[in-house]
Amino acid sequence: MGQGGDITSRAVIPAGVRIRAEIVARSEGVVAGLHAAAATFSLVDPGLVLDVATTDGSSVASGAVMAVVEGSARSILCAERTALNFLGHLSGVATATHALVSAVSGTSARICCTRKTTPGLRALEKHAVLMGGGVSHRYGLDGAILIKDNHIAVAGGVRSALEAARRVSGPVTSIEIEVDTLDQLVEALDAQVAVVLLDNMPPALLRQAVEMTDGRAVLEASGGVTPDTVHAIAQTGVDYISSGWITHSAPALDCGLDFSRGL
Amino acid sequence: MGQGGDITSRAVIPAGVRIRAEIVARSEGVVAGLHAAAATFSLVDPGLVLDVATTDGSSVASGAVMAVVEGSARSILCAERTALNFLGHLSGVATATHALVSAVSGTSARICCTRKTTPGLRALEKHAVLMGGGVSHRYGLDGAILIKDNHIAVAGGVRSALEAARRVSGPVTSIEIEVDTLDQLVEALDAQVAVVLLDNMPPALLRQAVEMTDGRAVLEASGGVTPDTVHAIAQTGVDYISSGWITHSAPALDCGLDFSRGL
Amino acid sequence: MGQGGDITSRAVIPAGVRIRAEIVARSEGVVAGLHAAAATFSLVDPGLVLDVATTDGSSVASGAVMAVVEGSARSILCAERTALNFLGHLSGVATATHALVSAVSGTSARICCTRKTTPGLRALEKHAVLMGGGVSHRYGLDGAILIKDNHIAVAGGVRSALEAARRVSGPVTSIEIEVDTLDQLVEALDAQVAVVLLDNMPPALLRQAVEMTDGRAVLEASGGVTPDTVHAIAQTGVDYISSGWITHSAPALDCGLDFSRGL
Amino acid sequence: MGQGGDITSRAVIPAGVRIRAEIVARSEGVVAGLHAAAATFSLVDPGLVLDVATTDGSSVASGAVMAVVEGSARSILCAERTALNFLGHLSGVATATHALVSAVSGTSARICCTRKTTPGLRALEKHAVLMGGGVSHRYGLDGAILIKDNHIAVAGGVRSALEAARRVSGPVTSIEIEVDTLDQLVEALDAQVAVVLLDNMPPALLRQAVEMTDGRAVLEASGGVTPDTVHAIAQTGVDYISSGWITHSAPALDCGLDFSRGL
Amino acid sequence: MGQGGDITSRAVIPAGVRIRAEIVARSEGVVAGLHAAAATFSLVDPGLVLDVATTDGSSVASGAVMAVVEGSARSILCAERTALNFLGHLSGVATATHALVSAVSGTSARICCTRKTTPGLRALEKHAVLMGGGVSHRYGLDGAILIKDNHIAVAGGVRSALEAARRVSGPVTSIEIEVDTLDQLVEALDAQVAVVLLDNMPPALLRQAVEMTDGRAVLEASGGVTPDTVHAIAQTGVDYISSGWITHSAPALDCGLDFSRGL
Amino acid sequence: MGQGGDITSRAVIPAGVRIRAEIVARSEGVVAGLHAAAATFSLVDPGLVLDVATTDGSSVASGAVMAVVEGSARSILCAERTALNFLGHLSGVATATHALVSAVSGTSARICCTRKTTPGLRALEKHAVLMGGGVSHRYGLDGAILIKDNHIAVAGGVRSALEAARRVSGPVTSIEIEVDTLDQLVEALDAQVAVVLLDNMPPALLRQAVEMTDGRAVLEASGGVTPDTVHAIAQTGVDYISSGWITHSAPALDCGLDFSRGL
Repeated sequence: MGQGGDITSRAVIPAGVRIRAEIVARSEGVVAGLHAAAATFSLVDPGLVLDVATTDGSSVASGAVMAVVEGSARSILCAERTALNFLGHLSGVATATHALVSAVSGTSARICCTRKTTPGLRALEKHAVLMGGGVSHRYGLDGAILIKDNHIAVAGGVRSALEAARRVSGPVTSIEIEVDTLDQLVEALDAQVAVVLLDNMPPALLRQAVEMTDGRAVLEASGGVTPDTVHAIAQTGVDYISSGWITHSAPALDCGLDFSRGL
Repeated sequence: MGQGGDITSRAVIPAGVRIRAEIVARSEGVVAGLHAAAATFSLVDPGLVLDVATTDGSSVASGAVMAVVEGSARSILCAERTALNFLGHLSGVATATHALVSAVSGTSARICCTRKTTPGLRALEKHAVLMGGGVSHRYGLDGAILIKDNHIAVAGGVRSALEAARRVSGPVTSIEIEVDTLDQLVEALDAQVAVVLLDNMPPALLRQAVEMTDGRAVLEASGGVTPDTVHAIAQTGVDYISSGWITHSAPALDCGLDFSRGL
Repeated sequence: MGQGGDITSRAVIPAGVRIRAEIVARSEGVVAGLHAAAATFSLVDPGLVLDVATTDGSSVASGAVMAVVEGSARSILCAERTALNFLGHLSGVATATHALVSAVSGTSARICCTRKTTPGLRALEKHAVLMGGGVSHRYGLDGAILIKDNHIAVAGGVRSALEAARRVSGPVTSIEIEVDTLDQLVEALDAQVAVVLLDNMPPALLRQAVEMTDGRAVLEASGGVTPDTVHAIAQTGVDYISSGWITHSAPALDCGLDFSRGL
Repeated sequence: MGQGGDITSRAVIPAGVRIRAEIVARSEGVVAGLHAAAATFSLVDPGLVLDVATTDGSSVASGAVMAVVEGSARSILCAERTALNFLGHLSGVATATHALVSAVSGTSARICCTRKTTPGLRALEKHAVLMGGGVSHRYGLDGAILIKDNHIAVAGGVRSALEAARRVSGPVTSIEIEVDTLDQLVEALDAQVAVVLLDNMPPALLRQAVEMTDGRAVLEASGGVTPDTVHAIAQTGVDYISSGWITHSAPALDCGLDFSRGL
Repeated sequence: MGQGGDITSRAVIPAGVRIRAEIVARSEGVVAGLHAAAATFSLVDPGLVLDVATTDGSSVASGAVMAVVEGSARSILCAERTALNFLGHLSGVATATHALVSAVSGTSARICCTRKTTPGLRALEKHAVLMGGGVSHRYGLDGAILIKDNHIAVAGGVRSALEAARRVSGPVTSIEIEVDTLDQLVEALDAQVAVVLLDNMPPALLRQAVEMTDGRAVLEASGGVTPDTVHAIAQTGVDYISSGWITHSAPALDCGLDFSRGL
Repeated sequence: MGQGGDITSRAVIPAGVRIRAEIVARSEGVVAGLHAAAATFSLVDPGLVLDVATTDGSSVASGAVMAVVEGSARSILCAERTALNFLGHLSGVATATHALVSAVSGTSARICCTRKTTPGLRALEKHAVLMGGGVSHRYGLDGAILIKDNHIAVAGGVRSALEAARRVSGPVTSIEIEVDTLDQLVEALDAQVAVVLLDNMPPALLRQAVEMTDGRAVLEASGGVTPDTVHAIAQTGVDYISSGWITHSAPALDCGLDFSRGL
């Protein structure tokens, strides 16, 4: 809200009026962000209480009540939009993740997200990915060493990049390297890297990569991952499939606040 | 990035290496967010300079260079992901807005956004809407009085809500009221309100509303606005069409950083 | 307070002592800022409770108890000065506003403030203006379009400035234009602007402006507004009178904390 | 400004226009706050340069140019109001201080301020007091021990309060005690306190206090200090006279920005 | 913690598990920082309660329970390390201070700290010094005037530095001057300065300084202060001994969290 | 500094005086924190330039010039203490780390730090550890999964804790487990954990652990690590030795600012 606050509610709604309102899903999906919504209400007015009717990670049908909030009508209307924006966006991320997870069921592949997140909301979006059934990648640039094509170019090759990385690695510093070709994969496997990111390879190539690797490294596939393509990617035998789409382009889950009645 | 910084670049890339890299669109769309991307690079390292090759509001083809950044390789790689996240998200908003604006060309309707924005990014998203050819709605809860259904319910009707609103209005305080039915519209027009928001009305009903209003108030339509439906809505003669989809569900514009060569 | 905290209270007052103290008006006026004072006490020590004995917007006589605070003596003395500084300043603004409002009673003019506020305290001062019986102007530079003399000069005239403003206006974007002469007023009325700010015009000129306008625009007068001049200005028939004096030069309401007794 | 920025300037003023504008005093007084004004302009746009034509602490006549700012017209208009609010308020404090300092010239009394400052602006107001010819009191609650009436009441008397204070005092911890009566002054002098604050005593009583003290302590008078009363207070022989009025109720110095010409 | 939170506890410990854990000293010393530890736990989870079993300023034996915390196992493990880091560091400061205070018992010298503190933790370390039996020096650069050798050099001598300092001094502004030689001490005493810092003088020289001063100024010794040297320094008769070692080099008090049992 | 700024320098040093000053080591050690010192000077005054005469990670002798700063005397004296506090503390950490690294030379063990860091300074201290020749452990609670004794207790054993951890692990999530006994080590190795932390084991036991592990896991030893004990620990064949002492109890490197001459 602007620094002047919610001038509509202050003008139109008497100070003492209390209401009870329901947050209702207007489409089906997987819930995430109830804590962010609750925090929004209580930051606006510590007297507002959000009783959740579901939990992060649960599926909801269209029309389902997700939570109930009670308290000052002015405060609830002031906080409403921001609370719903959190809930709609994060449930959208969880729902998109769940779509991928469902599509790979029956394979051993796991879904994770990338660093293509919304500025300011990374931690919340990572949580939403977990709620949708995905797993977590590194949280920030300090969580692991991930050597990408440009790093390799500057470092002068896969081998020298890996040597440099190992010099500063502590006991829990994971090292992953991104490769675009099977030749690079061979070089990475020869250098005994633990995790390899196979970037933008079609399923046929991924399958070859899995065979060549033969368990010597953990394999992650990324690029072109959609609900339509993900099953074929998973069937190649890669361990992880990472998707930027689930965080940067997931449509919001539609939800609204139904102002039920005076108390 | 985490508090430990970009451990990969620090490990793999020598301190003195300088590079020149291009930010390239990987799909077509309308650009927005070059300032946010530039700010990201210069916050990470004041020595980085982003030379823009296009401007916010321009259309780009897939493959087009959007900007060039030069400086420390470590710094550029550290800032890359966040800068691209801003640019991809905001260009996605501008592109979605432009799709609606194009679809209503030939009518007098103008496209604006709602308060269904991403928490923390409202100002940037509003800018992206302008860049896509839309116009601005109120920026926050203090920018105008917008009386919604729940306000009317608590206030005891359209008339009493409007009277309360007028009591505290200054010279530039706009008052808009949301109506769901033609009966409410009549009540609002009788009370001489300046702007009416017609919520979730199908085109046939919108057309009746425009006829009944006959220029006595500015009319804004919202609800169910997509690139497919927006032309029919615009043809009803409403003045503004507002869309939450362009901010909360616009897919990101795909863009990447191509590390060109050492300097 | 400084980073070392309130060294006097810590040195002189034993940790466990609890007191009850009254905030007392030492001159008469209109109260504003009880919420800011309460927030100050509870930020210093969440265990302090402020029971208000009056409400923002009420008149108090000299000697009246405005609120009572109970709790740790150390905490109350530590928070006292800042709480009183808020209350004294904001009640001063409300009292000054009320003086203008009283002086125009019997006319249809309403009193509002300007952007000549104290840096950091705008929102609180706007609230104090409302408590004194004034109404609100735009809260920030994004709340409405207000075209001033310098904007007109750069834009090349009233007409071209207004055209530019309308191109980006959404449904609730108010447009106001400042004029210094009756010629400019005519130009503004011809361009059908909704609100005109008549800057620094004496009452005789204001009266002419009201007649020329004849209801075609809302009129706001500003410049030289004091408790002595405001009645004459109001009698000219303008709709709003805006004053910078009520926020930037209002003397503080004198109030103090009387430490009543141990509990 | 609000989160949407200065929508008027963005709408009405083309992006590339540069101007040169003068900040002009519209009444006479003592200047303070040029640094705060300069910081405001450069925070809004690092490309704006403020060339000062006077210095903090100088007297200006009505009509004098205080500073000149050059750069983007949009940026200057966006920053204008906040920069002038700082300059007007702080010059108002300096001017009020100077009025007291002038009134006590010929005596040995010095003028200082109290902690009755505007929340958020204490450091800037203290600076303005120095610029007006005053001297500084403690900056915060940790700068010295100041034992007031309520501290004495809880501590059980002047002597026990002073003993407690001395127990935690380091080499540069000053101790001052507030007294309301000559009896309390005797008690404080007997306890060898270094500084005594004589609260709300009329000149006759102050004169007695000065005689009784006979140089054994530094004396500060406060309460009822105005430009009319301050000379009589100074003639009693007290060392310091402290005034809350100069910070909490000083009228702002009127100043404006005159937009001179395109570059 | 990083933005992703405590991924170990979230993965390994079920959400509902509650525990009770004891914070135990693993070496002997003086306690400080229980409030900082309590604040850490309650910021991580407002539902955590820390029951203290001792108080800041008390001595504890190795093995002693300092506090007990109860609540969510996930929350306690997430907050544990930061809470213990505060407690260990601040108790280390208190313990080091106490060692100096004990070593000077039987003399009139008091121990204080310097500005050689850990960036960000000054206020907490000053509190720990008090808890160890020390007294407080100025909290920041605005708490008193302390003229050091470099100030004297630029100002052109002791006398001119003191004159400049007095020109802006208010009633509670203490002035202290640092001297390296007895000649400078004489100059300072002649100029009637209230407090003199004797920098890096061996005990024999300090003794001469005390004699020469003969009560005309408060004397503070600093430089080379360790538990081994401090008694000899104190016996020279100086009033205060200041030590940087107690804040910047005090070893942490070893303490740990013993997870006792499920509730 | 306090909100009133450096009142000594402002009082005693004329505004225009410029100086050149050297930061000098007063004992020998390894440098770290030159960037933090430089940032301190430039935050206080962007006009100050610090020219470094050495680099982070270099050894300096007592008396060596570490850096030279030039500019306003007031600004340099205002920033001095905080800049030196950063440099002294961080160089102390680097020096302590280097002492351990030197003591294990000739073995394959590497030195890393723990999470026993100073609140607020973790990232800087981790950097100092690298500069002293150590390597990095996880930066925060989200950088890796580290299962400690209390986690095992709540989870119901090593095996179930590891299973839970693996369920949410992404491709680069390292898992380390802490064991106190050889029995627990066997259980961890059977569960194929990648990294084991051997807590508080004497060298003889560590040697057995190394033999039993036989390369199946990376081994980290912690507990009782000092410059005296670390060589014996390293000789057992563990891969990493982690020390809390190098961050929480390292004595500061003594350094000072020698004010050389006017410019």
